[in-house]
Amino acid sequence: MNFKPIFFINGIILLILSAAMLFPVLIDFSDGNEDWKVFASAQIVTAFFGFALLFSTQQQKFTLSLRETFLMTCASWVILCFFGALPFFFSSLDLSFAAALFEATSGITTTGGTAIADLDNLPRGILLWRSILNWVGGIGVLIIALAVLPLLQISGMQIYKTQSFGEIDKVLPSATQIAIYILLIYIALTLIGTVAYHFAGMNVFDSLNHAMSSLATGGLSTKNASIGHYQSAPIEIVAIIFMLLGALPFVLYVKFVRGDSGAIFRDSQVRAFFKLFTLCVAALTLYMVLNDKFYFLDALRKSAFMVTTLITTTGYASGDYTAWGPFVIGMAFFLTFLGSCSGSTSGGIKVFRLQILWKMMQQQLNKLMMPHGIFQVRYNMKPVDISLQAAIAGFFFVYIMSWIFFGLALQLAGLDFVTAFTASIASISNVGPGLGEIVGPAGNYASLNNTALSLLCAAMLLGRLEFFTALVLLVPRFWRN
Amino acid sequence: MNFKPIFFINGIILLILSAAMLFPVLIDFSDGNEDWKVFASAQIVTAFFGFALLFSTQQQKFTLSLRETFLMTCASWVILCFFGALPFFFSSLDLSFAAALFEATSGITTTGGTAIADLDNLPRGILLWRSILNWVGGIGVLIIALAVLPLLQISGMQIYKTQSFGEIDKVLPSATQIAIYILLIYIALTLIGTVAYHFAGMNVFDSLNHAMSSLATGGLSTKNASIGHYQSAPIEIVAIIFMLLGALPFVLYVKFVRGDSGAIFRDSQVRAFFKLFTLCVAALTLYMVLNDKFYFLDALRKSAFMVTTLITTTGYASGDYTAWGPFVIGMAFFLTFLGSCSGSTSGGIKVFRLQILWKMMQQQLNKLMMPHGIFQVRYNMKPVDISLQAAIAGFFFVYIMSWIFFGLALQLAGLDFVTAFTASIASISNVGPGLGEIVGPAGNYASLNNTALSLLCAAMLLGRLEFFTALVLLVPRFWRN
Repeated sequence: MNFKPIFFINGIILLILSAAMLFPVLIDFSDGNEDWKVFASAQIVTAFFGFALLFSTQQQKFTLSLRETFLMTCASWVILCFFGALPFFFSSLDLSFAAALFEATSGITTTGGTAIADLDNLPRGILLWRSILNWVGGIGVLIIALAVLPLLQISGMQIYKTQSFGEIDKVLPSATQIAIYILLIYIALTLIGTVAYHFAGMNVFDSLNHAMSSLATGGLSTKNASIGHYQSAPIEIVAIIFMLLGALPFVLYVKFVRGDSGAIFRDSQVRAFFKLFTLCVAALTLYMVLNDKFYFLDALRKSAFMVTTLITTTGYASGDYTAWGPFVIGMAFFLTFLGSCSGSTSGGIKVFRLQILWKMMQQQLNKLMMPHGIFQVRYNMKPVDISLQAAIAGFFFVYIMSWIFFGLALQLAGLDFVTAFTASIASISNVGPGLGEIVGPAGNYASLNNTALSLLCAAMLLGRLEFFTALVLLVPRFWRN
Repeated sequence: MNFKPIFFINGIILLILSAAMLFPVLIDFSDGNEDWKVFASAQIVTAFFGFALLFSTQQQKFTLSLRETFLMTCASWVILCFFGALPFFFSSLDLSFAAALFEATSGITTTGGTAIADLDNLPRGILLWRSILNWVGGIGVLIIALAVLPLLQISGMQIYKTQSFGEIDKVLPSATQIAIYILLIYIALTLIGTVAYHFAGMNVFDSLNHAMSSLATGGLSTKNASIGHYQSAPIEIVAIIFMLLGALPFVLYVKFVRGDSGAIFRDSQVRAFFKLFTLCVAALTLYMVLNDKFYFLDALRKSAFMVTTLITTTGYASGDYTAWGPFVIGMAFFLTFLGSCSGSTSGGIKVFRLQILWKMMQQQLNKLMMPHGIFQVRYNMKPVDISLQAAIAGFFFVYIMSWIFFGLALQLAGLDFVTAFTASIASISNVGPGLGEIVGPAGNYASLNNTALSLLCAAMLLGRLEFFTALVLLVPRFWRN
């Protein structure tokens, strides 16, 4: 294994992170807040390590083997979390290192749970830094979905190597060019989001922050009560739109920009996603109206926001949905597993996997009736190879096992049943809020002990890296030559 | 579809059930309890319908198509539940029909949850009837595992058609003969269990009842506090032994009786089961000792009983394990999914599926490192076909989806989150106790509303029939000619 290119790339990533710290430095300095020194020192430390990695390697050419790609990917996310945590740790917030690391990991993995108890009175630099972490994490995962995951001949992502990208490759010459397109679209959507939030009634600073964390389906807010702070229907609508935009495959936006505006509507995953979305919103609205919880429009507004924030794995709250009846709680739990589209900033199991698993079940039922019949699972009009089916089903198994593993580990760390098992899935799916008084939509992660916070960091990273990218590092054979 | 053989077989099954009702008639009559009339009338009604089905068909020869086999299997279990519920419904207990149906379904599916609030003061006839239902359900599922499930070219049971039975077929001429062997072994083990419980300190009546519900991994007890009523280490040890005996593949006992005593210890599933069992007992014992909950021997006794009762899907309680610390609660939840060996009386996902899913994960990690390597999932020394892997993984998906479906439905019926989602999995896995104050090991199902009880009946049957046997009836194509 050649570590040099890994060091080199991580050096560059640290320099980018260091450059991003300039924004909180500037805003705290202009606010006359002493916290700018915290960011400045974190910036210097980060830049120092970035340059050290860069110059110690003097890499001339880039050839990464498969194993090096995995190591590079995992290492870069861990390093981003560690250095991203420095400002939180150095700041006047008096956070433990585990809490600071949790905050940064929650940001970078676009999870959106927070270990800071009181956001409303924080200096603006810290608030901006949290949103920047969300935003950087969002673009990071888009790059992974574009460049790294299709390399995995597992967990079903290779379907995108042979299908969507195959088509795009004919139009665009290289992955680099697609990446540049996606970055520009991401920036443009963020700016449009900022304007939209501002028009809906937020001040400029909050607008920028929420635009960043909506599009990244991150969910870190500048307010304790999250979007619920504003009690504004226009703001909730803007949030719903930009969370949904973050949850669709960005490569389809590239097609859209290049003139193929129908691609989004033809995509099997996008259609299934909106079907599932509509079904859940309708079920919740109906339930709330029939149980006299809210009037129709109010129920629709609350349902739409809740389903959006959970299915896109954003994790904003517009209110405490755990008080809206038992079925709403169960739906929140269910939605926390799902996730949205592959190639988006969202987490979770993702819709295309659920589609294929569902079709596998149908096919098995057909086969049961006609044992000698030949049935084919199809996705986006093309047959899905049986080994791909096994891979996707294997991914689902690992998903559930990881959820139970972290649930048990959190119970060992002293958390109660509901807190442990919902925080576990909310972290693995990169959603944020779980259920119960502590980690539910009305709570936060500030009261958890350091062991629990560290475990949740691991769960968030594992989920964000789609398990196998990280699990492969645990196999002894990986490290042998 | 030819319904005649289906009617015919169900007629015979009803006559057997009717004959079984003679035992509670006799015991209530000899006790001088008026309840004997309840059983006598239920017996007459059941016999009447049995004879009606039998004579209306006048079946000469038996040839069941695949579709007819599925329908016959599902119909016979539903009919057993309905007629098994009659004595509960007619009795002085004042149960709703949903509660009576729940009690019978819980018995027949060997689940073991009870909707009767006070068992300690019941007439002996009702208590015996509950145990008989457990016992009949136990032998019923052994027959299904032997004769019906291997026909399913899905959910992975065909592995037993080609492997274990393939070997046995060389020694024993026919499945009928294996079935007779299994029935005799089942009866013999029940008698030995009765003697063992009696030696351990139970009276004869309780010994017989517990022997029946232990071996069937059913878990219905004659006492409110279940096995915990006796506070006796010898009784707990006998219970552990006979629950474990019920949880092993009965076909291996046939091999044992016929001289191949090593077969049990060579079997891959049995070895994995005992590894898993030991690991869980060790983890729980260690946790309880380290957290100063109990001394070592006490912790070991409590852990061994709890792991046995949950992993074998029996559902007895020796105490309220939800008071033994948060990790114990999480472990109880985890154990409720697992189940024991295929071809046993236990429910759950079952160990051989977990083994193959685990090996699929390992194989995917290997493939990730060496994309061009050829890796094979092996089970009992033989390669596992990729379509079999997909089938088993598909089964796992259906398992989890069914759990969530019934959890949501129970929340719609008004149950709280923990009660709904743990009662759902405890019913699907045919375990019995869930978590929380209502359905936890110290509670019972008596306070649930009729909607919830009916939903749980469906969940128990679906789990017992391993989903696909029942789900196939919901496909419209099944009913077309």
